[in-house]
Amino acid sequence: MALLVHKYGGTSVGTIERIHRVADKVAKAKGEGHSLVVVLSAMSGETDRLITLAHEVTKHPDEREMDMLLSTGERVTIALLAMELRGRGIDARSFTGRQVGIITDSAHTKARIARVAADRIREALKQGVIPIVAGFQGINEQSDVTTLGRGGSDLTAVALAAALKADRCVIYTDVDGIYTADPNIVPAARRLDKISYEEMLELASLGAKVLQSRSVEFAAKFNVPLEVQSSFTEGKGTLVVKEDADMERVTVSGVTGDRNQAKVTIVGVPDRPGIAARIFGPIADASVLVDMIIQNVSQASLTDMSFTIPRADLPKATSLVKRIAKDIDAKSVAVTESIAKVSLVGVGMRTHSGVAAKMFEVLSKEDINIMMISTSEIKISCVIGEKHLQQAMRALHKAFGLDGKAPKS
Amino acid sequence: MALLVHKYGGTSVGTIERIHRVADKVAKAKGEGHSLVVVLSAMSGETDRLITLAHEVTKHPDEREMDMLLSTGERVTIALLAMELRGRGIDARSFTGRQVGIITDSAHTKARIARVAADRIREALKQGVIPIVAGFQGINEQSDVTTLGRGGSDLTAVALAAALKADRCVIYTDVDGIYTADPNIVPAARRLDKISYEEMLELASLGAKVLQSRSVEFAAKFNVPLEVQSSFTEGKGTLVVKEDADMERVTVSGVTGDRNQAKVTIVGVPDRPGIAARIFGPIADASVLVDMIIQNVSQASLTDMSFTIPRADLPKATSLVKRIAKDIDAKSVAVTESIAKVSLVGVGMRTHSGVAAKMFEVLSKEDINIMMISTSEIKISCVIGEKHLQQAMRALHKAFGLDGKAPKS
Repeated sequence: MALLVHKYGGTSVGTIERIHRVADKVAKAKGEGHSLVVVLSAMSGETDRLITLAHEVTKHPDEREMDMLLSTGERVTIALLAMELRGRGIDARSFTGRQVGIITDSAHTKARIARVAADRIREALKQGVIPIVAGFQGINEQSDVTTLGRGGSDLTAVALAAALKADRCVIYTDVDGIYTADPNIVPAARRLDKISYEEMLELASLGAKVLQSRSVEFAAKFNVPLEVQSSFTEGKGTLVVKEDADMERVTVSGVTGDRNQAKVTIVGVPDRPGIAARIFGPIADASVLVDMIIQNVSQASLTDMSFTIPRADLPKATSLVKRIAKDIDAKSVAVTESIAKVSLVGVGMRTHSGVAAKMFEVLSKEDINIMMISTSEIKISCVIGEKHLQQAMRALHKAFGLDGKAPKS
Repeated sequence: MALLVHKYGGTSVGTIERIHRVADKVAKAKGEGHSLVVVLSAMSGETDRLITLAHEVTKHPDEREMDMLLSTGERVTIALLAMELRGRGIDARSFTGRQVGIITDSAHTKARIARVAADRIREALKQGVIPIVAGFQGINEQSDVTTLGRGGSDLTAVALAAALKADRCVIYTDVDGIYTADPNIVPAARRLDKISYEEMLELASLGAKVLQSRSVEFAAKFNVPLEVQSSFTEGKGTLVVKEDADMERVTVSGVTGDRNQAKVTIVGVPDRPGIAARIFGPIADASVLVDMIIQNVSQASLTDMSFTIPRADLPKATSLVKRIAKDIDAKSVAVTESIAKVSLVGVGMRTHSGVAAKMFEVLSKEDINIMMISTSEIKISCVIGEKHLQQAMRALHKAFGLDGKAPKS
């Protein structure tokens, strides 16, 4: 008789038929005797429809007004699901972000949660009512509507689970869990039964789009057991939890690839103190996120500085970097678009040495040249030529013993 | 430098192009130095779309959830107009019913306004900000969203105008004012420059759908000058105000026709005390609105009882009335669908006698048989055969001096 928070994403409530299916799942959990809180996203496509409307009205829509507009999507789905459940004789009630008491800062369109009151949710649960909560939204101290940014419904679910000390927060989505690699690229990829918050965070930031990073951070901070499940099929999902002894037996949990990168090199940079700040200060000011940075060994007081940025920012960054290069008397700027980043993630790396060496060996055997390397406690990333990404991922997946049919743990 | 409340209906904000035009009107009024509050409906068709969604989900949608659902429509339009105005450099801000402080009872889908706080609106006006307010919605004491029923945005506008002591409440719609008769039926109909609240109420309840009755009542109660204008054309509209001396010079202000009626006759009703209650009690319980009632002179302790009801309720009412007739030992039930009601409205009737006599004479000259008559202080209605409605309206319009090209007052 646990207290569960269920979260259903946009594709799970995208049609009336699918809302019926969500109601089935809710009814089933209720029937099993669980207490339940349901968090919903807007119908898939609805948020994009509203954004398009806004841009038809004006080029740069005001962000407070954008939040007023976008927050309507979740209100529609919570009302529809609550109606459906009540129509079946199940006592359910919709609640907006405001009614739940999700108080945020005033950073419209990307607000951060300050606190969760949840008084009405506790009261509803006490009365045996299933609260159906609008994800993605809150209000600021002025009582204006705010939204939490893309994927914010995950965050609503996790924050509510933390506030209510729920036994589990189940994120229903269109995949049935977290995989050792993208099955579209690595056919031998397996679903993981369990993964640590930290590994999940590395995977999320590396481009696995199943869970929003902020919600994983939040879950880790408040130790909320997260589960990723498919809303379309029955069966096990992946549990995202605190690292445990069991996990350490596995060195590498997953392989990820990221094509969304570009490499910029400033050639012939005068090697003097403060030069890095003069390069990366203006780039940060322009809101371009720099990922990896490599500085070659200095020769004759000149050095080459290479770094990677999101490919989408390349046009903006190129002209900016050229200006910077001129300012600091560097020789030239070179840009490479056709790169990719391949990464290994696993908490076991902390206690197992030799993962990096083995990774380099595997790539070398495949004749893949490594352009840049970066490491963290539980991750190793290499930048390689984009055309080699699939080959590299498959080889690494096999070499680190991830291939196979059976679930991992 | 007046304080104006502008209300734009669903067709006036039905497309992005039309929202641009509303912004033009707002900018113009602002440019003329007026203080302005704007109340909006949902885009035309949006409320119906949401109602359809709800009925696809479940047969009898819960009314609290219906309000959660329907209140999203106005939030979309207020956000879009506020964005548009801000994009033009005009300081505007959207406000929901809750943010305005429109507090209602808990009669979901048809809530009544209990009070209007309007603190944030006053504050915005003080700062030179144009408040863009979601019509049709409020919150109850439990902070749940309520809606005011069809046409409720008119009521929001009038209630706000009353709370703010605005100089005028302008209802922008798809017609340019109130006419002496429906121009589709009476080509010689003229737009009225001015009309009293009471006349407007009679016209509204008789089927002229320009203004919601409740909002006219509210305007009359708080003496809010109302104006009906076209949002598509420039030029004068109709002012709805307190009756003034000027108005009394005109006996009849308008002619209306209503085809949406049916006549039911119970033949051979035993004429004894309490019989009317036994007939009309159950009919009221079934929520059938009875309009006119006529009881024939009793002969041999038997009487005939005729009454009119909305034609849409006829199937429901017929079986009910047959049951009642049996219960009270009446002889039979006769139903006539092909009737219509033609009415004259005018505050001048109070002081001018002979209007009824002249009306009967006009109809008689046209060879039109009168089946039922009802009169009030400022209205006379006759039930006639439906096929004669147009002929009757044109004849009365001419006979009472309403024909002509020039505006009336």
